[in-house]
Amino acid sequence: MQLLKDRVLKDGIVKEGDILKVGSFLNHQIDIGLYEKIGEEFMRLFSGRGINKILTIEASGIGLACVTALRFSVPVVFAKKSQTKNLDGDTYVSTVYSYTHGKNYDIRVEKKFLSPSDNILIIDDFLAKGKALLGLIDIVKQSGATLVGAGIAIEKGFQEGGALIRGMGVDVKSLVIIESMEDGKITFRE
Amino acid sequence: MQLLKDRVLKDGIVKEGDILKVGSFLNHQIDIGLYEKIGEEFMRLFSGRGINKILTIEASGIGLACVTALRFSVPVVFAKKSQTKNLDGDTYVSTVYSYTHGKNYDIRVEKKFLSPSDNILIIDDFLAKGKALLGLIDIVKQSGATLVGAGIAIEKGFQEGGALIRGMGVDVKSLVIIESMEDGKITFRE
Repeated sequence: MQLLKDRVLKDGIVKEGDILKVGSFLNHQIDIGLYEKIGEEFMRLFSGRGINKILTIEASGIGLACVTALRFSVPVVFAKKSQTKNLDGDTYVSTVYSYTHGKNYDIRVEKKFLSPSDNILIIDDFLAKGKALLGLIDIVKQSGATLVGAGIAIEKGFQEGGALIRGMGVDVKSLVIIESMEDGKITFRE
Repeated sequence: MQLLKDRVLKDGIVKEGDILKVGSFLNHQIDIGLYEKIGEEFMRLFSGRGINKILTIEASGIGLACVTALRFSVPVVFAKKSQTKNLDGDTYVSTVYSYTHGKNYDIRVEKKFLSPSDNILIIDDFLAKGKALLGLIDIVKQSGATLVGAGIAIEKGFQEGGALIRGMGVDVKSLVIIESMEDGKITFRE
């Protein structure tokens, strides 16, 4: 998606440790017009495949999932990262390691929100080592729902998540795949 | 907002400890059509007041803020609840007590995303004791931006947050105000 590539080049900031900061438009401040275009693109990529629910994970996936859901006219379910009083005991749980936070955490979805008749599209802002996406895929499997695919805004192609999850047969479509960020210079996979 | 009242009565679940679960349509599973109507209502309530940015807090405020932002055609900024590698050191910080999680946490917004020339609308799904909203208001004040008001989907009117924050002169508009939930029966403030 050329628009998103251009924006990453213009406003993305490469920091030490293979960190790409896109907080000025994607996941801290949100350019809502860009989100609309991303939602349209996910619609183009996944339309006609019977998707009836979008699954994401808090926090930064939620906005993108909602704007995409407006296009598909389907509900969003977001996995929660903490056990709160507001969650029923009856949940699907998967354990995810976060490199950003340096620890394991459980993600949870109440069982009543996913069922074997659902056709799920997973939406998230980032794919790097793939831990969050693997957790969401695990929850879809536990529920017996059909996983149609995963729509990702930005994939770090030089990390293992994309290859690993595509190797499992999941239809992962990333709007931008970064091939390398060496010396602060971003190059894309074509 | 009658549509939201009707939905709270139909699908809201009252649990012990003054907990209202609206996870089937508002903040775990999201009815995106309902979100659109809520966004329209916030537009009606706050239009013509020069709002150029919407501020919310992760996680469950983000979706509502984004759908509302589509109406206003303005960016969203969401306060983050944890210090991660992806945040710059240069942030506004406020400390918030969460009754849901039973602990204090810091919320943060990078300074570059709020400025004295901004006219801010805060959006959140819930207002109860008001701790999260007070934290967001504190951050707006630190930045020198103008706070136009706060749009809330559901306010628990029998808890102190709404009165406290309106008493500070903040224009809080809640689409639904719950007067009581005694014995599991929800009544609204008219």
